[in-house]
Amino acid sequence: MITPEEALARISSNVGPLPARTAPLSDAEGCVLSASLAARLDLPSFDNSAMDGYAVRASDLAGASREAPVSLRLCGEAPAGSPASVAVAAGEALRILTGAPVPEGADAVVMQEKTERVGDAVLFYATPSAGANIRPRGEDVKAQAPLLAAGSTLRPYEIGLLASQGIAEVEVIPRPTAAVLATGSEIAPPGTPLAAGKIYNSNGPALGAALRRWGVAVRDLGSAPDDPVAMASALRPAVGTCDLLLVAGGVSVGDYDYTRSVFQEFGFEEVFYKVAVKPGKPLLFGRIQAPEGGCATWVFGLPGNPLSALVSLEEFVRPAIERMRGVTLVQPSYHLRGRALNAYPLPKDRQQFLFCRARPDGDGFALEVIRPQGSAMSKMATGANALAVARLGMGVVREGDLLPFRWLK
Amino acid sequence: MITPEEALARISSNVGPLPARTAPLSDAEGCVLSASLAARLDLPSFDNSAMDGYAVRASDLAGASREAPVSLRLCGEAPAGSPASVAVAAGEALRILTGAPVPEGADAVVMQEKTERVGDAVLFYATPSAGANIRPRGEDVKAQAPLLAAGSTLRPYEIGLLASQGIAEVEVIPRPTAAVLATGSEIAPPGTPLAAGKIYNSNGPALGAALRRWGVAVRDLGSAPDDPVAMASALRPAVGTCDLLLVAGGVSVGDYDYTRSVFQEFGFEEVFYKVAVKPGKPLLFGRIQAPEGGCATWVFGLPGNPLSALVSLEEFVRPAIERMRGVTLVQPSYHLRGRALNAYPLPKDRQQFLFCRARPDGDGFALEVIRPQGSAMSKMATGANALAVARLGMGVVREGDLLPFRWLK
Repeated sequence: MITPEEALARISSNVGPLPARTAPLSDAEGCVLSASLAARLDLPSFDNSAMDGYAVRASDLAGASREAPVSLRLCGEAPAGSPASVAVAAGEALRILTGAPVPEGADAVVMQEKTERVGDAVLFYATPSAGANIRPRGEDVKAQAPLLAAGSTLRPYEIGLLASQGIAEVEVIPRPTAAVLATGSEIAPPGTPLAAGKIYNSNGPALGAALRRWGVAVRDLGSAPDDPVAMASALRPAVGTCDLLLVAGGVSVGDYDYTRSVFQEFGFEEVFYKVAVKPGKPLLFGRIQAPEGGCATWVFGLPGNPLSALVSLEEFVRPAIERMRGVTLVQPSYHLRGRALNAYPLPKDRQQFLFCRARPDGDGFALEVIRPQGSAMSKMATGANALAVARLGMGVVREGDLLPFRWLK
Repeated sequence: MITPEEALARISSNVGPLPARTAPLSDAEGCVLSASLAARLDLPSFDNSAMDGYAVRASDLAGASREAPVSLRLCGEAPAGSPASVAVAAGEALRILTGAPVPEGADAVVMQEKTERVGDAVLFYATPSAGANIRPRGEDVKAQAPLLAAGSTLRPYEIGLLASQGIAEVEVIPRPTAAVLATGSEIAPPGTPLAAGKIYNSNGPALGAALRRWGVAVRDLGSAPDDPVAMASALRPAVGTCDLLLVAGGVSVGDYDYTRSVFQEFGFEEVFYKVAVKPGKPLLFGRIQAPEGGCATWVFGLPGNPLSALVSLEEFVRPAIERMRGVTLVQPSYHLRGRALNAYPLPKDRQQFLFCRARPDGDGFALEVIRPQGSAMSKMATGANALAVARLGMGVVREGDLLPFRWLK
């Protein structure tokens, strides 16, 4: 049994980013850029007006104010979308719209609200400084300069920046594909009557929902009974054709050797088995090497109890997915802290994840630890909005203890 | 010009949830349940073992310990997935696996690790209490009892709970559909050489990326020049066929009446225009009534500068989308606070959103306010990981001021 920190370290050191691929910008949101990009264009690519107003020579308006307006001759109009055609001479003002190129001769824009049109003249009620309301060429981006570094996650802000450079395709690390199999002779598919001793397959749907939310394409392999032949035949189509294979159930003490032997038929190399967490101890992780013409597949054997499976997915599989996606986590997880409103007993040898109801409380948060909680209590978990951590060796949660937590969104 | 609070209040009081629809469970993640559901089954539906071990009568093992083990006769095995067939009599133990039904006669399960198998007998090294390691029928859910309330968001935990009840379809509020149009005679599509005075369409891709991330299906209407006929013809296919219409650009002082008149051709009813925020003041919001056989469409006219458009989307359009999806926000936004590491000037009459680099600092966060920032500086924004708020009337941000912020993920 290893600590959760050790498990995360082994995941991190073993799993690397998937090979890069070209994607249209419209499909790249949330992906990581695989190579640094330099700017193709200055941004803005020409001096332009930040306001609707008038382009002028600032020196013409020295001393202009509400009390002592200065009048200039209107010499034309500069709409957005066309090159500036008219130059502004001394004593002249050009009507200009937001985003339009600043005409030759002008060195400032006065916003419309500080002017008044009187026939062919414009009265100015304010003195602009040189450069006022002009966005100079290259202010935000200079052509050839670094635009975005390899490893950047493409948020809507990055997508916008790339589009503004006329970039329609990017080299990114793709989203992983995953296959999910629920195992156990007790598992029945939905839509069938439930025979004695059977339960419905809830791990497949729940794990699939979480994976899809993280941008992973999911293949649902359904369920297989506790039978090596059936299990191997359910897994076979996924080996070499998906990046990640999740098998829920069949990894507790009694089943482990048997599940492992099924995996080994496909060339499984184990990285770890058993992590000191509750829920979730019997967690199996390793790799199936790429078959000829296929891809390598990372394999997680998840515990079969529904909450053990989901918490293991969020705590251990998700970091593996983030490694595959090339994501650099800027933010430590569990950086929020809350005060326990009630006591809760803890296991001696495992870190416990606690389902809680969290709410803001003064400058921080209060955590009601839900009692009782168990790894098969699916309904209990739907009443929680937060998952707190009681670290190994804490012994017991006492009322008032400060616990790290994350939101269950 | 109204305050941002007033704008949000008007969005909230005008926009309601979309009509409910039946969805397969596999497509319902993130959706809101439109009607309360009662449980169909007890969960668990039978008393079952929480461990791999032996089902026994607890009274048979009174006083058993490592020093004084008690021996019971092995009477069979109960695998998971089958009804319990063998009863446990006094002096007997039944081998039982996790999830298997507890046999008649037994009232406790002893975990395997506290036993030893010796031929046809099992030695027990511990005294269980009655009920130990048994999950009683109905412990988590009782049939007919409330399962999930209308308004619940279906996270993976809720999906798992529904699946465990054999529920394969649910009545939910669907994800909205949106159409996005960028306007401005200066806008050129990507993949074409950039003529003088032109810029590439960056709002379409950036807004689309953000909407898709929120689960909205997006139709990209491309761009239209500042021309009422062209604009109306670009918008026409979206009216009555999508829930949300976003038009970026064409809403600043000079263009407002003209954009409004294009909207009015489709029966636009204005709810508000102009919000006291920076970036983003010229924000237009209203509704186009459902044409015969179509649906009503909420319309936002967003400012054309890229950061004004994206911040307006996140601050005002997203709440409208959440209303359409029936989401009850549990968490106040901007509940995080950080200390400003530097000063920044503020506008007198508007709340300012500030692009920042945030990092953990002691028990809280430090915020480096990026200088300079402007509503067209797309590259500047890609260097930010947080957006802070300087409320109306704050005057100026001083070093050490505490500002509410949210992550830019």
